[in-house]
Amino acid sequence: MSEAFQDKYADEYSHCYGCGKNNLAGHKLKSYWNGVDTIAKFTIERKYSGGVPDHVYGGMIASLFDCHGTASASAFSNRLRKEAVGESQGLIRFVTGSLAVRFLRPTPIGIELTVNGSLKSVVGRKVEVSMTLYANSIECATAEMLAIKI
Amino acid sequence: MSEAFQDKYADEYSHCYGCGKNNLAGHKLKSYWNGVDTIAKFTIERKYSGGVPDHVYGGMIASLFDCHGTASASAFSNRLRKEAVGESQGLIRFVTGSLAVRFLRPTPIGIELTVNGSLKSVVGRKVEVSMTLYANSIECATAEMLAIKI
Repeated sequence: MSEAFQDKYADEYSHCYGCGKNNLAGHKLKSYWNGVDTIAKFTIERKYSGGVPDHVYGGMIASLFDCHGTASASAFSNRLRKEAVGESQGLIRFVTGSLAVRFLRPTPIGIELTVNGSLKSVVGRKVEVSMTLYANSIECATAEMLAIKI
Repeated sequence: MSEAFQDKYADEYSHCYGCGKNNLAGHKLKSYWNGVDTIAKFTIERKYSGGVPDHVYGGMIASLFDCHGTASASAFSNRLRKEAVGESQGLIRFVTGSLAVRFLRPTPIGIELTVNGSLKSVVGRKVEVSMTLYANSIECATAEMLAIKI
């Protein structure tokens, strides 16, 4: 498998608890290409439960979307640059401008979850990404992110 | 100081990593009345950093809003019931239907943050809450939540 998007960030931007390779305590979420879309897979430890023990807490779901969304924005931006000028500039870090999450149903804990990302728009330094979180192929949450290139 | 909203949840709904009294590994966020609004104060450990070490990661900010928002919805709903029928039914747990976060500027890590919550609307089992996160009295992020009574 090719290198994860997050592992291509510059070292000084790799301290994120959700996905940074330099944050030893963190989740280390890894995002990859999946055709023209992006994908991340993650199994959440039982301690990250919501109000009831069998479901993921909302903040953890937002975390997955946040880290997968900014990584996807970075990858989409880089791909467009490659297509336009025939060269990569490496993965430039994006930060979150806004993140809107819809919780469709409880997300089960302890099984592998999948987060899909698709490109919605690019305007200057701003990239919009749409995401869906699945458990056993069932949609549990969706998100819309506006990410901004640093 | 009076008991936190989250500590009044029924035991079976108190396992949340963000705010549950029965989750020993979690953040145990506590929310209280602040006049007609609600307030939570929290100092984030340095490991929960974003891409750079001095700022909070986005998922953690969403977590604070998620737990303070549902607790506030529960408290607002209970207050309205008290005003209407003169009695409390205790704090009924709410879950998040949607949470939209706007990140206005980087949130510094290692200092006490304040989250304010205000009631926007109540329609049946649905409560809308507006929130703002402050560091040193400066707005760092805002959020709009739709919470739903279980």
